[in-house]
Amino acid sequence: MASPQPPNGASAVSAHPAEAAQTGPASQTGPASQPGPASQPGHPSQPGPIDAAGALTALRQRHPLVQCITNAVVTNYTANVLLALGASPAMCDIPGEAGGFAAMADGVLVNLGTPTREQREAALEAAQQETPWVLDPVAVGALPVRTALAFELLEACPAIIRGNASEILVMAGEGEGGRGVDATAESADALEAARALAKRRGLVVAVSGETDFITDGTRLITVTGGSELLTRMTGGGCSLGAVMAAFAGVTGPLEAASAASALYAVASERAAAASEGPGSFAMRFIDELARVTPEDLNNRITEVTA
Amino acid sequence: MASPQPPNGASAVSAHPAEAAQTGPASQTGPASQPGPASQPGHPSQPGPIDAAGALTALRQRHPLVQCITNAVVTNYTANVLLALGASPAMCDIPGEAGGFAAMADGVLVNLGTPTREQREAALEAAQQETPWVLDPVAVGALPVRTALAFELLEACPAIIRGNASEILVMAGEGEGGRGVDATAESADALEAARALAKRRGLVVAVSGETDFITDGTRLITVTGGSELLTRMTGGGCSLGAVMAAFAGVTGPLEAASAASALYAVASERAAAASEGPGSFAMRFIDELARVTPEDLNNRITEVTA
Amino acid sequence: MASPQPPNGASAVSAHPAEAAQTGPASQTGPASQPGPASQPGHPSQPGPIDAAGALTALRQRHPLVQCITNAVVTNYTANVLLALGASPAMCDIPGEAGGFAAMADGVLVNLGTPTREQREAALEAAQQETPWVLDPVAVGALPVRTALAFELLEACPAIIRGNASEILVMAGEGEGGRGVDATAESADALEAARALAKRRGLVVAVSGETDFITDGTRLITVTGGSELLTRMTGGGCSLGAVMAAFAGVTGPLEAASAASALYAVASERAAAASEGPGSFAMRFIDELARVTPEDLNNRITEVTA
Repeated sequence: MASPQPPNGASAVSAHPAEAAQTGPASQTGPASQPGPASQPGHPSQPGPIDAAGALTALRQRHPLVQCITNAVVTNYTANVLLALGASPAMCDIPGEAGGFAAMADGVLVNLGTPTREQREAALEAAQQETPWVLDPVAVGALPVRTALAFELLEACPAIIRGNASEILVMAGEGEGGRGVDATAESADALEAARALAKRRGLVVAVSGETDFITDGTRLITVTGGSELLTRMTGGGCSLGAVMAAFAGVTGPLEAASAASALYAVASERAAAASEGPGSFAMRFIDELARVTPEDLNNRITEVTA
Repeated sequence: MASPQPPNGASAVSAHPAEAAQTGPASQTGPASQPGPASQPGHPSQPGPIDAAGALTALRQRHPLVQCITNAVVTNYTANVLLALGASPAMCDIPGEAGGFAAMADGVLVNLGTPTREQREAALEAAQQETPWVLDPVAVGALPVRTALAFELLEACPAIIRGNASEILVMAGEGEGGRGVDATAESADALEAARALAKRRGLVVAVSGETDFITDGTRLITVTGGSELLTRMTGGGCSLGAVMAAFAGVTGPLEAASAASALYAVASERAAAASEGPGSFAMRFIDELARVTPEDLNNRITEVTA
Repeated sequence: MASPQPPNGASAVSAHPAEAAQTGPASQTGPASQPGPASQPGHPSQPGPIDAAGALTALRQRHPLVQCITNAVVTNYTANVLLALGASPAMCDIPGEAGGFAAMADGVLVNLGTPTREQREAALEAAQQETPWVLDPVAVGALPVRTALAFELLEACPAIIRGNASEILVMAGEGEGGRGVDATAESADALEAARALAKRRGLVVAVSGETDFITDGTRLITVTGGSELLTRMTGGGCSLGAVMAAFAGVTGPLEAASAASALYAVASERAAAASEGPGSFAMRFIDELARVTPEDLNNRITEVTA
């Protein structure tokens, strides 16, 4: 029977570090393909134009091992998103294993949606490693346990912080979270806060919204488009953070966050066109992630001149 | 790209309290629509006919924030059910956060399917708040940890208890759970026990089965129909409890439980007609929940004269 | 409305012990059907040809109650696989309940994908019972906590160990897990280790890969075919372990593991033919599991003469 080896590992903890995974299926990319650029953690302000197509090519060639310490609601969907895309997911989230695994992984996601005690310990272990990691501070500011954890994690230097406007305002020290006026904050409202946070901490901030804004404090990237149906299923935002972690395993964080947003815009529009509601959309979105080609990502990213 | 802000929050902990959510998309209801009746926690014996159509209209207008402390098997499906329907799910289930969040939420579900230590603490925190909440005592009687917890929670006055006949018999003090003869109990067998439990405790009891029975101890509502395929996928019953909690955020508990049951009957029949098996049924059921109109719920509910 | 009683229980902890479940819907099997053979835990080396068709007939007649102590990523998918197939899943995985429940169950799965402290305790409780159980040592060797647990569990005599080649090599004492050369081990590479492990411990070892190998140390069964898409979704391998536990509730472990592998080969090929990507495949695989007939499994299993 067809090898269930990858899904077994991938479903929980991959037994396939990235080196091994590189012997996997060849990339299906066309002439736009190029050797995957070297990972550049800690160097968010990369030079040159953002090349989302090149990032996707690199991801499909290198099958990055992505460790996800994420919430209970979206673990399954997140793993399926990563597998469909060509990455190798691993949900290793217990103390005593999370740190060692993060050291082997190519990218790490820490999502604070349902932070049990063990997950909180695991997150802190993983964040200590050199591997580039993404912080998704779900509902920070509104709830005390995760808020304390988010700021503790911030000290461990994530490569990317991804959130909605309210969450970014809180992380930047300018908001109180989902209660109060900023609960309806638009992504543009958080733009200056995002820029300041990125500059101060030397990381990339991605603000999700009608328009996505991605900034390293100096450069500013915008991505528009995408389907509203992403907001009618669970995991649309949380899995985007995981995809940013996957791209961060093959390129710098500014390009990683931008490529992930562009990919979601393209795949969600296509899935929506073939869907009859949020149930079929969630399924087709996975199908489309497997189909998107690097070329499809061209012209999806705009760099705003500062 | 289309805002992933809602799904991010919604997938784990919503950053959108109900006030904010009320600024969301307008209800698509027709002339049957009416302003959402005020929530009536603690007043189960509401007067007047049960208006499932009105309850659905109110839910879609007000997007109630529904906190789910539920089992690991169904978190994802439950969140997707609530989002498809128009509610705002939030799986906030850790100690130190669950109580404060319950105070902000419009409805709370406590489902005992896989009650870890932290979830047990969180459930007790949440149940102390004023927010109307639903108890789904999965497998109570058959297993010791959850059985003790279920009776402790009962003292904190749920608005609705939802279960199968065996579970309701146990909660009413008349059964031993899933072992023994009552494992095959039909919903009608638990009717008198349900009525007595509801009356004694001043709450609503919903007994799921071939026919659903909903009672506040005085009035008795029945709902028939629905597809057998709901029993061939996981989460059919558990997510129904979450939908009852959503409705309990916009109307009284007797109408809330009745409207949820009617909704499931309608949506499951439609999903079954378009399905090729339990996999496609689970997906289409989500699609249909997004499509059901208030008018579709008319004539689905029967009030039995006592 | 159609009874949500089974899914409620089934989604988390079934309230239906096997005796009750046996009164369920009649098997749809044809002339190949035969009364379900008696369970033979501890007697892996069963005589006679492997009868996958008979095993499926027995499973659909007896609806075995399958306790799953499994990873957070695949709980939902695993429960849906078992329900579609005709088994009765129950994810009872907390200390204080897991042991008692295992004693009532017909088969138990212990999957080490995301082994929290409570799950580790629960697994040790469940493994002490007489019920035949399957060990799926996900990523054993690569990570310390689960590796220690896997060898502790091995002393409690699983009926079946299921894993990929790397995992089986580690369990047999001959590999170091997913790091290093054996990360790319093919299933054939682990064949001798599997045979030795099976013989030494008196159990069945199932090595998943391009070809599946199942051995009790004396007999050797191979299963080929199946779709590559099983490796592009999460849970393909993990849910196979659960299906082996279901079959182990109605037949001996060699036949159980072989029938499960044959079933996956057939259902995955059919699902792939009707799919447009990994998302639709995952859904259709569930549909196909509900449709496969005992006859479909004929000629899928080869016994290799020693």
